[in-house]
Amino acid sequence: MLASRAPLAESNARLAAARRLTRRAVRRETGRFLAEGPQAVREALARPDVVVEIFATAEALSRHASVVEAAAVPVAQISRKAAAALSETVHPQGIVAVCRRVDVPLADAFARRPRLGAALVEPNDPGNLGAILRTADAAGADAVAVGGGGVDVYNGKAVRASAGSLFHLDVVVDVVVADLLTAARSAGLLILATTSGGSRDLDDVPLAEPTLWLFGNEARGLPASVVEAADENVRVPIYGRAESLNLAAATALCLYASARAQVRPPRAS
Amino acid sequence: MLASRAPLAESNARLAAARRLTRRAVRRETGRFLAEGPQAVREALARPDVVVEIFATAEALSRHASVVEAAAVPVAQISRKAAAALSETVHPQGIVAVCRRVDVPLADAFARRPRLGAALVEPNDPGNLGAILRTADAAGADAVAVGGGGVDVYNGKAVRASAGSLFHLDVVVDVVVADLLTAARSAGLLILATTSGGSRDLDDVPLAEPTLWLFGNEARGLPASVVEAADENVRVPIYGRAESLNLAAATALCLYASARAQVRPPRAS
Repeated sequence: MLASRAPLAESNARLAAARRLTRRAVRRETGRFLAEGPQAVREALARPDVVVEIFATAEALSRHASVVEAAAVPVAQISRKAAAALSETVHPQGIVAVCRRVDVPLADAFARRPRLGAALVEPNDPGNLGAILRTADAAGADAVAVGGGGVDVYNGKAVRASAGSLFHLDVVVDVVVADLLTAARSAGLLILATTSGGSRDLDDVPLAEPTLWLFGNEARGLPASVVEAADENVRVPIYGRAESLNLAAATALCLYASARAQVRPPRAS
Repeated sequence: MLASRAPLAESNARLAAARRLTRRAVRRETGRFLAEGPQAVREALARPDVVVEIFATAEALSRHASVVEAAAVPVAQISRKAAAALSETVHPQGIVAVCRRVDVPLADAFARRPRLGAALVEPNDPGNLGAILRTADAAGADAVAVGGGGVDVYNGKAVRASAGSLFHLDVVVDVVVADLLTAARSAGLLILATTSGGSRDLDDVPLAEPTLWLFGNEARGLPASVVEAADENVRVPIYGRAESLNLAAATALCLYASARAQVRPPRAS
């Protein structure tokens, strides 16, 4: 299956080890995960010491030659079937990087004095989680914390949906929410809980100061104790007949409201 | 499999007919589709003459008794296995309504003088499409048009992700984009195309007037001809290092910007 310069037995063992990274327990144990697709591989390579090795089909090696050529790590050619086995998505991209985990400790994220952070408490959908990382990055957030259990940020679908943003942000995982709130308060951040019954409308909350947004599980929302512990609880206004917004849309609206209020310069297009 | 009062052979034939509605060609041919889950069934029942019949497991019948009791249509009890066969989602909800299609002709949607509309050109992901319907509804949009081919609004995943909003909006399907633009222009709507290279920033576009937003395919964006035909092309600002926003996030930001500018009253929470 492999066509790298390494002896075949060694290469096949490495491929088998990579395949095991589709399991959360193995990712946790090894501290490694898979980043699939040319964009994710490119963004992973842009961070020092993240990519361990790359597996790609012949077709992907030729199509994404510029990505692979820039890599100072082993690159192994694999079959389409092997590429599909490394993929957790419906349409395998044919190129996968084995990466070292990139999350940072909670204290490190706060030591960098974040102006805008988001915390996801018990998110349950990996695609949603990845999309929210992408949105947080687009809004200029500094950090995203994932806590209270829930889906793994290194799940293949989450990594892919993040479209590289996993590698741009200070991502904190396995966060104990009480610790997060203590750290955010010490750092002087305004703590805002989002909830459909929030007492303040998003458009009426002053957002110029450094802010940590708390978002709950898609179905259940935030635990009541977390809502109570926040400085304010905020609802996104509903103008039509929908019962609520989905998590990804609510996140986009809240984080962009902060980005505007903090008067960030948008990136030149 | 069925435990309704209808003779078994007849009931099984109806269940088999419902199961065929998981195929787009059959939906198109029959003008019917499946709405899964208690919320979708409730919202479908709230519209006259939409629900033809309901299939539910014993468990769902007891859990959602209030939904089913309000229904003036046949209700058949089915096995869990049969419920799974009617489902296009990973976690079957155990309750499914066979519905008549609810889309409206383009002319009807414009005859109602929409203030805010969205058009999705070649959307490719049913979950995204449904989430965008939900967001458009939340933003108080009147109409959503889906055109240029792409995924079916009656796909089970799209219906479920819309969380009932499919039944709240004027949805227009199979739209020819040129016809849509002509109709929007005659109705006096401002036509805004979203594109990452848009010449105006979302925050700088006057949005108080009736507006039709155009959104393109997740991967390819809008065709150049459509961008050129619009009154303005608009970019959502990117403050961080993400290359772009995903379609659902961009839609939320654009439609909510319109809702704010049009000074709609948010629904009381």
